[in-house]
Amino acid sequence: MACLSRAGFLSTSRSIWSRRKVFIPAALRCTPATGIPIVRRTLASSSLPPSPSFQLSPWRRFLQTLGRVTLVTILTSGGVFLYITHKDRTPGPQEPFDPSKKTIVILGSGWGATSLLKSLDNEDYNVVVISPRNYFLFTPLLPSVAIGTLDPRSIIQSTRYITRHKKRIVHVYEAEATEVDPVSKTVTYQDTSPVKGQQDSGTIKYDYLVYAVGAETQTFNIPGVKEHSCFMKELKDAEKMRTMVMDCIESAAVEAGNPDSQDDINRLLHMVVVGGGPTGVELSGELHDFIVEDLKQWYPELADRVRVTLIEALPNVLPMFSKQLIQYTESTFKENKIDVLTRTMVKEINEKSVIVQNDKGELVEIPFGVLVWAAGNVGRALTRDLMAKIGATQSNKRGLEVDDFLRIKGAEDIFAIGDCTATSYAPTAQVATQQGVWLARHLGQITKKERLEARLRELRSSPGSTPEAIETTVKHINKQSKFRPFHYSHQGSLAYIGSDKAIADLPFLNGNLASGGVATFLFWRSAYVSNLFSLRNRVLVINDWLKVKLFGRDVSRD
Amino acid sequence: MACLSRAGFLSTSRSIWSRRKVFIPAALRCTPATGIPIVRRTLASSSLPPSPSFQLSPWRRFLQTLGRVTLVTILTSGGVFLYITHKDRTPGPQEPFDPSKKTIVILGSGWGATSLLKSLDNEDYNVVVISPRNYFLFTPLLPSVAIGTLDPRSIIQSTRYITRHKKRIVHVYEAEATEVDPVSKTVTYQDTSPVKGQQDSGTIKYDYLVYAVGAETQTFNIPGVKEHSCFMKELKDAEKMRTMVMDCIESAAVEAGNPDSQDDINRLLHMVVVGGGPTGVELSGELHDFIVEDLKQWYPELADRVRVTLIEALPNVLPMFSKQLIQYTESTFKENKIDVLTRTMVKEINEKSVIVQNDKGELVEIPFGVLVWAAGNVGRALTRDLMAKIGATQSNKRGLEVDDFLRIKGAEDIFAIGDCTATSYAPTAQVATQQGVWLARHLGQITKKERLEARLRELRSSPGSTPEAIETTVKHINKQSKFRPFHYSHQGSLAYIGSDKAIADLPFLNGNLASGGVATFLFWRSAYVSNLFSLRNRVLVINDWLKVKLFGRDVSRD
Repeated sequence: MACLSRAGFLSTSRSIWSRRKVFIPAALRCTPATGIPIVRRTLASSSLPPSPSFQLSPWRRFLQTLGRVTLVTILTSGGVFLYITHKDRTPGPQEPFDPSKKTIVILGSGWGATSLLKSLDNEDYNVVVISPRNYFLFTPLLPSVAIGTLDPRSIIQSTRYITRHKKRIVHVYEAEATEVDPVSKTVTYQDTSPVKGQQDSGTIKYDYLVYAVGAETQTFNIPGVKEHSCFMKELKDAEKMRTMVMDCIESAAVEAGNPDSQDDINRLLHMVVVGGGPTGVELSGELHDFIVEDLKQWYPELADRVRVTLIEALPNVLPMFSKQLIQYTESTFKENKIDVLTRTMVKEINEKSVIVQNDKGELVEIPFGVLVWAAGNVGRALTRDLMAKIGATQSNKRGLEVDDFLRIKGAEDIFAIGDCTATSYAPTAQVATQQGVWLARHLGQITKKERLEARLRELRSSPGSTPEAIETTVKHINKQSKFRPFHYSHQGSLAYIGSDKAIADLPFLNGNLASGGVATFLFWRSAYVSNLFSLRNRVLVINDWLKVKLFGRDVSRD
Repeated sequence: MACLSRAGFLSTSRSIWSRRKVFIPAALRCTPATGIPIVRRTLASSSLPPSPSFQLSPWRRFLQTLGRVTLVTILTSGGVFLYITHKDRTPGPQEPFDPSKKTIVILGSGWGATSLLKSLDNEDYNVVVISPRNYFLFTPLLPSVAIGTLDPRSIIQSTRYITRHKKRIVHVYEAEATEVDPVSKTVTYQDTSPVKGQQDSGTIKYDYLVYAVGAETQTFNIPGVKEHSCFMKELKDAEKMRTMVMDCIESAAVEAGNPDSQDDINRLLHMVVVGGGPTGVELSGELHDFIVEDLKQWYPELADRVRVTLIEALPNVLPMFSKQLIQYTESTFKENKIDVLTRTMVKEINEKSVIVQNDKGELVEIPFGVLVWAAGNVGRALTRDLMAKIGATQSNKRGLEVDDFLRIKGAEDIFAIGDCTATSYAPTAQVATQQGVWLARHLGQITKKERLEARLRELRSSPGSTPEAIETTVKHINKQSKFRPFHYSHQGSLAYIGSDKAIADLPFLNGNLASGGVATFLFWRSAYVSNLFSLRNRVLVINDWLKVKLFGRDVSRD
């Protein structure tokens, strides 16, 4: 009854209030449930926008907004991601070779050559790339591949992935340059891969040669290095090491039951790394991770017997880092039971043991299962040959001498970048990359200048041209002629040292920012990911890191 | 003023209505905006549960519920996923070897051995696995690895990934069985990998031997097969083929400019597959995908010249499939420009060409860049040696003869499963898997029986035991003695034929369900994924498929 009466009141009150657009009817129902439909109708009829957050607490409203924002972000970023990946893998048609244009021949597909290729505008050049590798290798992550943290193909990128996106067709020859003739300005190349065509070599003329062949591993002519050690320069090296490590562990497992074989098992489970640079340190660190995170699970009877030893001839590892970080690294290695032998020189390497001279000058024999040689660079035969051809001006044992514009002294049409040069900079990826980028800009500037000079000739030859026009062109030319020499700006040094710790030496303002630990590890990862040349590589590397977090590293001996 | 008056009315009306828990106050505000806070207070003070869906349309309410359900599903499934992956990669401690228990030696780590290992309860057995491969290889996806659709490590699984989850320790020796002696019941093994310990071989005694060594590739003693063709049996074969295909393309690119080399380029770009079984067909299909999806983008000048030819000696490909599906495959291949040469026998293989006898009986020379040999199995030397040892009862050229309980005829303690046997079944993964599972159950039954027999001896020897007890035990023994023979149930045949099409021949009720096309392709994928032995492999394979969809296949020659 009371309810009815209220209903009656309501019906009138609605007619009054509804004009004023308020929601009495809903409010006045004694049974809200039955009221809801009517409310909606009233709402609909009202010109008030239906506000869903009407009776939501700030928290709920916040959550709702958050949800929407997340959704939108995910959708948009997903869309952008798909768009970029699609664009990356579907390059359009390219302009053909133009005989009237100059030809740049690039030797190599490493850091220098690839960063040059990426930033070079080849509209005014015919570009030919000659390299025995048809891909770019992200060398800093090689240790991760050797331990199985990353898949080999996650850190490589086909060179055509870059060249196919250039304005003008770029020829890529998977071949080795066998001779460079600075006089006739030609390069001779040879297909050295197992499969060869009937025409497996050729000679090509260049206007500019970019010499970026890198270096090869320095063995210091120590006997046995080539035969019994595993290098860490190419992808094959990393894959070989991974296979060898697993092979040693499996061979140890085969004789595990035999009481007479215990020494031999310790030998097989001893991993020796020679060279205390970033590569050697990261290898040791990753090896330690592999032992504690994976081997312990699958080879519980052997994992604790696996030992890692790092051998360095200098007084300490990582000379390019600050004292504090070196100490941090060495103490971390101590915690991780990685033996560091500094002031120790390798004298000879046999099949199953290495003979070293320790800091006391004594000769010691160290048995090993796997020995990795990560000690320095030496110029390639091709480089030595080229230096000999040029003669007197090229006498530096470390490599090719270049001027401020990266031109080889004695052969001005050849630019040399990266590890094949002898500069005041360390032979690092960072230097090579900056040189490549600088050279791309430099070559662009040269064409600009040449275009202007052509225009000037035109103006001068044509009678109708005003002296003003000529003058301005001359001014432009003079401006373009001011080439800025190459200058290297150090972005800092990074190294992973195992158990989710990394060290970073960063030039911070005037002083130096040195940092180590887990935060630095995350920085290390993000820095490496952002330095990868393609979105593909970035996604694949992150993807691999997730895979390892979820499933661990594979212990199959592939 | 009007507003004030209403406010006045409101203040009273609230005191009236609030007891009845209705929302006049909110409703009566002339400025809803300012009203909202008060409403919230009223709401909070009221005992009515705040119903967010209060004024939401059914559509909004549906969306909201959907959102919540999705969120919950994602969170729970994610949690379960993480739990399983963690459990998989952190196996607990295991019981040690027990000299009082019988020893099962398993030779091999393929389909038969692995499915046996997975389902075997080894509480009552000491188990030793001997295999030159320390991992299981998911052979049906090998063609995908050869083309670069999948990473090699996505389709392999370390054998320890299974053995470490067993109740009792399982010894895994990465070694090759060199001799089986059915009389002294011993197996001799030898570590044949590059790295060896000083004790690289041994002999082990078995109570039961499970002989699952598989078969090797059949060359029919055709000259040049071993030297100049690429097999498709092991992971290495797939990786080798991938490298060779890219090497051919790069070698063609090197001589692309040379007008005299056009025939040689066509030769290099001709991929020949010998063998019209599932492997050969899937290889051809995947090669076609690789050409149109990837090579066209990165080698536009060469992609259209790449040709695929499938050679089969029989009148048609895929003999195990229904006529209709064979026709479907052949028409799809025609569309995809894959040449199918049936009734064609390979006579000789040279470095750069294969000599075949075509259906007209003529000898034809076909130049090729890569030739893949995917034609049949033949018993291993070890198997032939074992058969010779056993003698008269083993005379079948196809392999080991076994009885209904998979025991080798003439050596009852040796069970043989998989491709090394000569049964009425085809040498497929499916048969081997079912044999492995059956054998695991069978071995379990044997131990049960033996336990009961031991109990019976006890009862008989102890004076206190009642005849009833003995009788029931005898009954149990008789029950356990009824071993069910192995019976194969065919689940159907599947094959991928390229351009997102697959064919399936499924035993459907009594008749046969034959289907082809894109839907079948998805079925093919899900069937393969569900047949993968571990969650890890499933995730990795799906992950690889996504990678290829996003970034395409890598064309680096690793």
